[in-house]
Amino acid sequence: MSYYELCNEVAEAIQKAVSGLIGKTEAGVTLRIGADGTPTEKIDETAENAALSVLEKDGRSMRFVSEELGEKTIGKKPEFTFVLDPIDGTFNAVNNIPFFCVPIAIGGSDLSDIRYGYVKNLVSGDIYTAEKGKGAFLNKRKIHVSNVSELSGLSVISYSQRPHAVPINNHKVRRVRVFGCAALELCYVASGIFDAFIDMRSMLRVTDIAASKLIVEEAGGVVTDGKGKPLSTELDVTKRVNMIASNGMVHDKLLELV
Amino acid sequence: MSYYELCNEVAEAIQKAVSGLIGKTEAGVTLRIGADGTPTEKIDETAENAALSVLEKDGRSMRFVSEELGEKTIGKKPEFTFVLDPIDGTFNAVNNIPFFCVPIAIGGSDLSDIRYGYVKNLVSGDIYTAEKGKGAFLNKRKIHVSNVSELSGLSVISYSQRPHAVPINNHKVRRVRVFGCAALELCYVASGIFDAFIDMRSMLRVTDIAASKLIVEEAGGVVTDGKGKPLSTELDVTKRVNMIASNGMVHDKLLELV
Repeated sequence: MSYYELCNEVAEAIQKAVSGLIGKTEAGVTLRIGADGTPTEKIDETAENAALSVLEKDGRSMRFVSEELGEKTIGKKPEFTFVLDPIDGTFNAVNNIPFFCVPIAIGGSDLSDIRYGYVKNLVSGDIYTAEKGKGAFLNKRKIHVSNVSELSGLSVISYSQRPHAVPINNHKVRRVRVFGCAALELCYVASGIFDAFIDMRSMLRVTDIAASKLIVEEAGGVVTDGKGKPLSTELDVTKRVNMIASNGMVHDKLLELV
Repeated sequence: MSYYELCNEVAEAIQKAVSGLIGKTEAGVTLRIGADGTPTEKIDETAENAALSVLEKDGRSMRFVSEELGEKTIGKKPEFTFVLDPIDGTFNAVNNIPFFCVPIAIGGSDLSDIRYGYVKNLVSGDIYTAEKGKGAFLNKRKIHVSNVSELSGLSVISYSQRPHAVPINNHKVRRVRVFGCAALELCYVASGIFDAFIDMRSMLRVTDIAASKLIVEEAGGVVTDGKGKPLSTELDVTKRVNMIASNGMVHDKLLELV
């Protein structure tokens, strides 16, 4: 089974498992604090269990890194790390806001070593994929970042709580949006709908961004931390990172602002 | 025909007229600068024409206030003002981001005198309505604002470009989102998914907010300008307003922050 088929099977199992929970109060019941340090809600656990069940049947040995359980070795000699956020955008899913997805990355031991990225929008069914060195795709059609180069023309996703939010928001860019689903918002940068994504809260987990980081890069974009350095973080759900992703043309200007 | 039926007929005509344009590049082609001072895109004009056609057939005389054409008197002795944003969330609709709606208000000559509000989510089909003094409804079921009273627990929609964005975003509230569709975001406050909506950019038009203002108030919420005063603005698309809408319990705390 190819990486694409494996990811697809996991995403479909999750979609099926959570379909009865979307927009339901019970979906948002907190069961415990997950391995990533944030609450595990019923919909998260349901999704993760569905994924685990597919992976355990797959037959290959892998390291499974996921937001709620943290980490689990499947089989004896892991061939790769399978990095999953069972539902990215839990608040949206629980409240029937149509903006949540399943992001999956396949790689080694670090964010700098992702070889395959997959994000499925669970509302529209759109699938974004990227394989290292082979480009990025939306439903198997090649995608590319935008070519806007002026700050005043930018459409930006910005999770900004520090004073730098002021210059960014204060009419220096054209449009600021926050949909509450980082993996999908990054795919919007990859496909050119948005020009940049900024999150300087030190709150992003590797499970949120590993897949989309590769998708943005393979679509021609640039991804760094807030100082312009390449992201390099162990594939561990307790780690937190800052991130700026852009079409590349405005990356330096954004780094100056944050 | 009741106000509900009239609004429904207009919203359905718009939905049908724009269905082929969602997510299409041609939908976003700028035709001219509209009466509200912002660009009229093809999807906006298509939607407005569909609405006008329904209203001209209705038979009643009314003042039609709409974002692109500005104002038009239908018939000889207007019985009411019909306030429309043909598509709220044009950027989303053009880019296939599932967050856009048709807001309609029926009233006299001022924002303080709205007697009926109607908002149809064009993606899910959800319909929010309110009649002055008779409560607010989502798909005919009564809705009510949330009862969160602590700043630290708030889920807020915030269009904030001034320095006050910092205290609001800087961990003083739980969650900040910006979906780019004010009329629908305000309905989320009315139905209790979000606790407050803040827009202090002096960019909101009466067509964006007239319907939802009544829906929030009839759901038990409070709507004021940035100084805590009731909104009072002529139903004129060239006017711009600031707005804070909340569940009421946190209104004073938010006024202190902005």
